Amino acid sequence: MTIRVAVFGSRGRMGAQAVRAVENADDLELVAAVDAGDERSAVTDAKAEVVIDFTHPDAVMDNLRFAVDAGLHAVVGTTGFSEERLTTLRGWLADRPELGVLIAPNFALGAVLAMRFAQQAARFYDSAEVIELHHNRKADAPSGTAAHTARLIGQARADAGVAPGPDATSSELPGARGASVGDVRVHSVRLPGLVAHEEILFGGEGETLTIRHDSLDRASFMPGVLLGVRSVRTRPGLTVGLEHVLDL
Amino acid sequence: MTIRVAVFGSRGRMGAQAVRAVENADDLELVAAVDAGDERSAVTDAKAEVVIDFTHPDAVMDNLRFAVDAGLHAVVGTTGFSEERLTTLRGWLADRPELGVLIAPNFALGAVLAMRFAQQAARFYDSAEVIELHHNRKADAPSGTAAHTARLIGQARADAGVAPGPDATSSELPGARGASVGDVRVHSVRLPGLVAHEEILFGGEGETLTIRHDSLDRASFMPGVLLGVRSVRTRPGLTVGLEHVLDL
Amino acid sequence: MTIRVAVFGSRGRMGAQAVRAVENADDLELVAAVDAGDERSAVTDAKAEVVIDFTHPDAVMDNLRFAVDAGLHAVVGTTGFSEERLTTLRGWLADRPELGVLIAPNFALGAVLAMRFAQQAARFYDSAEVIELHHNRKADAPSGTAAHTARLIGQARADAGVAPGPDATSSELPGARGASVGDVRVHSVRLPGLVAHEEILFGGEGETLTIRHDSLDRASFMPGVLLGVRSVRTRPGLTVGLEHVLDL
Amino acid sequence: MTIRVAVFGSRGRMGAQAVRAVENADDLELVAAVDAGDERSAVTDAKAEVVIDFTHPDAVMDNLRFAVDAGLHAVVGTTGFSEERLTTLRGWLADRPELGVLIAPNFALGAVLAMRFAQQAARFYDSAEVIELHHNRKADAPSGTAAHTARLIGQARADAGVAPGPDATSSELPGARGASVGDVRVHSVRLPGLVAHEEILFGGEGETLTIRHDSLDRASFMPGVLLGVRSVRTRPGLTVGLEHVLDL
Repeated sequence: MTIRVAVFGSRGRMGAQAVRAVENADDLELVAAVDAGDERSAVTDAKAEVVIDFTHPDAVMDNLRFAVDAGLHAVVGTTGFSEERLTTLRGWLADRPELGVLIAPNFALGAVLAMRFAQQAARFYDSAEVIELHHNRKADAPSGTAAHTARLIGQARADAGVAPGPDATSSELPGARGASVGDVRVHSVRLPGLVAHEEILFGGEGETLTIRHDSLDRASFMPGVLLGVRSVRTRPGLTVGLEHVLDL
Repeated sequence: MTIRVAVFGSRGRMGAQAVRAVENADDLELVAAVDAGDERSAVTDAKAEVVIDFTHPDAVMDNLRFAVDAGLHAVVGTTGFSEERLTTLRGWLADRPELGVLIAPNFALGAVLAMRFAQQAARFYDSAEVIELHHNRKADAPSGTAAHTARLIGQARADAGVAPGPDATSSELPGARGASVGDVRVHSVRLPGLVAHEEILFGGEGETLTIRHDSLDRASFMPGVLLGVRSVRTRPGLTVGLEHVLDL
Repeated sequence: MTIRVAVFGSRGRMGAQAVRAVENADDLELVAAVDAGDERSAVTDAKAEVVIDFTHPDAVMDNLRFAVDAGLHAVVGTTGFSEERLTTLRGWLADRPELGVLIAPNFALGAVLAMRFAQQAARFYDSAEVIELHHNRKADAPSGTAAHTARLIGQARADAGVAPGPDATSSELPGARGASVGDVRVHSVRLPGLVAHEEILFGGEGETLTIRHDSLDRASFMPGVLLGVRSVRTRPGLTVGLEHVLDL
Repeated sequence: MTIRVAVFGSRGRMGAQAVRAVENADDLELVAAVDAGDERSAVTDAKAEVVIDFTHPDAVMDNLRFAVDAGLHAVVGTTGFSEERLTTLRGWLADRPELGVLIAPNFALGAVLAMRFAQQAARFYDSAEVIELHHNRKADAPSGTAAHTARLIGQARADAGVAPGPDATSSELPGARGASVGDVRVHSVRLPGLVAHEEILFGGEGETLTIRHDSLDRASFMPGVLLGVRSVRTRPGLTVGLEHVLDL
């Protein structure tokens, strides 16, 4: 039995990729593709079981209200979820305990695995640094993913009672040692020819452990989206973050 | 309360490092250091709780018989354990169910973590390759660690029902595509100036995930040995492989 | 004064990029764009000085005959040049000693620089290996660039009287040590998510030197093409290989 | 004919390595090894042709005065050469135009080649960054080598009239984008388990070029020292920097 899937935001950049990814998956069936201006009832008419939402922060809450009312599970890649929005959503789901909603800020499996591995390794090393490398059109430094990774490492170290290792730097040119995020140094490289890369380095006596993720294309999000679609029906309630679906 | 530790093989290369590592750990106390020609009774006289064995395949079984009889937990880095030896050891431990013995072929935390992460990542990617790089005095290619890693990946993929991805190579100079171990290609680089390095690459559409371990010094084994000493007393029975102690 | 440039093969994948690159360069002016079915006389009518050829092995010799007769310099990225073709071309140019023709199998500056640096480093190290990594749709292993790099290293070593360093491998799983090209081992990695990458490693006592080129997009050929256009007018005769234009 | 070599500072860490390196070289002959307290006349008595100096800033000028007076060529790894000292030395050599003196702050061939390649590549890319990675006992950030490399890149770019490329960073956590040296961003990573590593990244549209040097051991200085010994006799006058000897 295939899973009947609908896509909200089907003509957007990510939504269009989701449409193709669902069409190409043997165990999924695309039954509706809806974008701004289309009738959302197409989704219920087509008896969709799971809806994928790649729309806009302004539209996503209304879409989720619709989905929950219609008894649809949802996989959401749209951004803009505040704590308040999550609380609202949990309230709606309390009335429909059989429904699952997965919201993920990052559907790239490799990025999610890299963060999870970093978290697992953190308590075995008192020293870690993050280098993220992006194209030179990026506005923020460090990247959100790198900052999040640094905070996860700092938290995992703190949880295990591991104090950050010593750093003998006594003479520093401003900026050389990077930015400090959660007691972890983060370095941001910007060059044309790069796309999106993250390298997490752990050092112990006589050895280093490095975890690196290279992302070249948004196509890399689709395996994570499909994994979400396949698992959301058996995960009732709200799940935030693809890592919870990976069963590591 | 510190843990009372003895070392067998205390004047060997690894044993001497273990002696120093125990002496430098606040929560451990070195109570006996024994090498060939010394009386093993020094260990029991000193009321050791855990014994570390870095001796020789010819001596280790006799040392373990002694340790089990004396009611000592053991952490073993000596090589040469056949299935037959492990069975014998399990028999001895059946009579002393409170005792723990940890045997690990590799105490380098980074190497063990790298293998574990590779195993975890394997089911999310149908394509993986291993590159191991060593100094040019190494006799075997690929390294035991790389071959073991490749087999773990192959097994994890098979367990998850993931078939190896396609490879379009139709014209190959002999050897270019490496050796095939458990359906995973392994490449061995040999150069002066290298020490011991392993890189595991996973590829999916639009992204790659790389896990790399660089080992420069046998000092890197000691954190793993100490972790074993700290945990072996609460892990009764035989444990083979440091990965089981890491609680990942 | 801008240089007046024409493009042969202007609607092909590379030719179209060349058209855009010329249009975007302040010091160049696109005066004609010709593809199959168009009249080549448009090039002479427009008083082009340099013609770029990204056409087909079947068409390129006739295009070059036309260019030489018309007194045009040429920059050629089309493949398929045998020794015989080069000899023919040198004959034509003998009658027009003021004209320059540049034929380059690879216009990616980074790839050409990497090969040149490898050649320069080769005589200082007796040990070198090449790892090339490509997407898994590639048919040949190793890549032409990697094989060419290996031969350049072997040749540079031989020219300097440096014998290849020792390799202690005595037990090898078939293929582990890669393919041997010009006394240099070459390893080919194939994974989805990769594009085209080459890594050249040199090892000496206590150190390694690594040169790596990552190519993600054919757009990377255009700076090399424009460099060729700018320099071909002052390099009379036939030049084969972008490296001769770089003045390293 | 072997070259007759003497070593000043023969019992120091670097000098002792130089002694062994000369002894192991077929084309060199160690004729004198002198340290503090020994008679320098041993060097002239033994008819040395070239003297290697790994002593101390307090001793090196006096040693060089002695060498020049005695008609000896010199290869110097001792630090502490100010412009004033170099001027003094040039004055001494003016009277002995047949003598050669080579002073090098860095004898690691790989490091010198990496800097030279960086300099050569700089004019083809408007964007470059340097990452240097060292053990966490290092006091200064960035390393002297990395800062020097950044300045060489900035200078080579300026000489070629290439303006630094754009950087869209508009929101930066302090330090994320590294230190700015000669218009090049430099990032310093500090971790136990690292030794001394430098990575230079150049980025252009669709491609990156990376040059990396990994130094694990001071033994890596010796091939450069021997290269200096072999070439200093045919390079009269003062030469500062091993790169001038490499004939690249």
